[in-house]
Amino acid sequence: MALKVGKGAHAPPFLVMDVITAANARAAALPPGAPGILRMEVGQPATGAPAGAVEAAMRALGARLPMGYTEAFGLPSLRARIARHYAEHYGATVDPRRIAVTVGASGAFPLAFLAAFDRGDRVAMAAPYYPPYANILTALGMEPVLLPAGPETRFQPSIAMLEKLDPLPDGLIVASPCNPAGTMLTPEELRAIADWCQARGVRLISDEIYHGLSWGTVAESTAATMGNSAVVVNSFSKYWSMTGWRVGWLVLPEDLVRPVECLAQNMFISTPHISQLVAEAAMDCREELEGNKARYAESRAALLAGLPQAGFDSIAAADGAFYLWCDVSRLSNDSVDFAARMLEHAGIAATSGVDFDSGRGGRFVRFSYCGAVEDMRQAPARLKEWLGR
Amino acid sequence: MALKVGKGAHAPPFLVMDVITAANARAAALPPGAPGILRMEVGQPATGAPAGAVEAAMRALGARLPMGYTEAFGLPSLRARIARHYAEHYGATVDPRRIAVTVGASGAFPLAFLAAFDRGDRVAMAAPYYPPYANILTALGMEPVLLPAGPETRFQPSIAMLEKLDPLPDGLIVASPCNPAGTMLTPEELRAIADWCQARGVRLISDEIYHGLSWGTVAESTAATMGNSAVVVNSFSKYWSMTGWRVGWLVLPEDLVRPVECLAQNMFISTPHISQLVAEAAMDCREELEGNKARYAESRAALLAGLPQAGFDSIAAADGAFYLWCDVSRLSNDSVDFAARMLEHAGIAATSGVDFDSGRGGRFVRFSYCGAVEDMRQAPARLKEWLGR
Repeated sequence: MALKVGKGAHAPPFLVMDVITAANARAAALPPGAPGILRMEVGQPATGAPAGAVEAAMRALGARLPMGYTEAFGLPSLRARIARHYAEHYGATVDPRRIAVTVGASGAFPLAFLAAFDRGDRVAMAAPYYPPYANILTALGMEPVLLPAGPETRFQPSIAMLEKLDPLPDGLIVASPCNPAGTMLTPEELRAIADWCQARGVRLISDEIYHGLSWGTVAESTAATMGNSAVVVNSFSKYWSMTGWRVGWLVLPEDLVRPVECLAQNMFISTPHISQLVAEAAMDCREELEGNKARYAESRAALLAGLPQAGFDSIAAADGAFYLWCDVSRLSNDSVDFAARMLEHAGIAATSGVDFDSGRGGRFVRFSYCGAVEDMRQAPARLKEWLGR
Repeated sequence: MALKVGKGAHAPPFLVMDVITAANARAAALPPGAPGILRMEVGQPATGAPAGAVEAAMRALGARLPMGYTEAFGLPSLRARIARHYAEHYGATVDPRRIAVTVGASGAFPLAFLAAFDRGDRVAMAAPYYPPYANILTALGMEPVLLPAGPETRFQPSIAMLEKLDPLPDGLIVASPCNPAGTMLTPEELRAIADWCQARGVRLISDEIYHGLSWGTVAESTAATMGNSAVVVNSFSKYWSMTGWRVGWLVLPEDLVRPVECLAQNMFISTPHISQLVAEAAMDCREELEGNKARYAESRAALLAGLPQAGFDSIAAADGAFYLWCDVSRLSNDSVDFAARMLEHAGIAATSGVDFDSGRGGRFVRFSYCGAVEDMRQAPARLKEWLGR
């Protein structure tokens, strides 16, 4: 008898992972000596975890430190170190009790969504957006509500957009800096949104995974100390360059601390012990991490100078993260095809916007610039040649 | 404005984690020189990952191997190695395409449940059961259906129990060896259940996390090659002694391969890279792992010989895993209180049965014997003295 499958079985793929596969295949098929593929499709720093953090892992392993389950919310020392980060980076006091270490930001979202929302609940977000927000919500039976955003609001949501929703949503996800647009909300805008949410009983989820990577156009601010209901998601994957270790964290409002702890006990038991040790050590590797950041800044500057000459002249305000969100409608209205041709003819892997905004993404391409600086420097010339400029 | 919380916010805790906290507190409060607490509450081997596996991790870190995202389903080499394990251990052919590496078995369950079931779907399991089965199902809006089981069926589900359900359930979870009872289904029983499920469109989820740890009373068999609809869950936490590394896997039926891949891309991105390397190396550390297993066998023998003399004379068939499920109704009908007194007066931490069977668990206590052999040898004498026998 044929078995039915669940609604979760219809979750769309996170397409960037298919682009990675295509770029790998293209790279493998290149003749020897041919110029390599410039990898601008991934949100994964070319660097690994900082050296001091890797050494901490090697010391722990060398000492045969047992790697067992930790408490569901993580090692107390790591939670305390994250709390200290709030003091140092934001001048904010955050009780370590509110901090839950998670299996990446990815592992944080299902915990936050299940604790905060019910099936059928409507959760708003600006479009373009990080695809797993909507895909996870949908798999859990919740409803993403998209707020189409453009350069007028730096591709960010606004209170005006929220006020137009009838009924009001149950939740709102914001990300600043955001993926894919790389834009930010000003501290005043984030505060106004947090106040608006708090006053109307709308649960705010603030994705702060790109904090630490902003370029001076807008100041970073955290929702962790705005009101008493917001949930903050963060991760060691980006600034701390630790993607493959899968460590993130939540700062929870008081009412969700115990509920999320119970969910985490059941759904994760704990985050990998070794990854937590590496994360804690990484927080003290400031010099190497600032060196990484300086390279992203160099790449960003090279691209912002060179891309317009190659025909990419409509780029979202590049406030933070390591992405450029380019309106390519002058070149193509089918960015899936455009990106495929770019990979074939210019040897550059980038991501079509349709992954991030099914409605308007055909006009957009996302370039990631967390790869090697030398590659980023080469990209504009290759694009210029390909497009015959 | 006060915010509502989601239904997921009412997930019960996984109580054993609270018992661990109590045992830690008791151990910390002991006067110097006092006999220590015998830890029999945790399902966590006292040993760490095998030495050869830890060395593989140190080599990879020493070589500064980048630890990035892997494919969502894991490193191809690990998936191939797991497929080889099916050939070697079961004589079964399993296509590596069907194998998904996951963040522990814990990370496997939400993927399997979301892909296979819908909200409102009813999923049966024998009681007593591993609490997160029911807690995760409930958090996802699905309904656990309990089949009270006793020594007549070795605390396992039977087709007779399933036939009595009206309507039939949408799914069935079996575990052999199971936690907490340590009992197994014979290969013929598992095959009959798999056939019954396949014929009736009931999705079978076979939790095989304790495979490799069985004691010769019943043969191990896998549902991975029974029919074309069963989902198998397994993990490196138990036989491979790698709890804190958080690596498990799924063997998926063809119809769920792509759906689970899409869910995993969104909800996990990938399992930690380093943990996958360690897992792959651990599969070749047979000698050390068989040494661990021999110690569990020694502990099991000591307890099965000594516990009855201490008054624990009704123990479920100890076919596998490293648990003894004891009916203590001759001693107490409130096993939460009984376990608390055991911790206080005998210095032994064990888990009340209520975590595993809310209805009848007050009569049961679970002893785990994966701790140090010497501790397990001491336990019966302490219990005998405490109970005045």
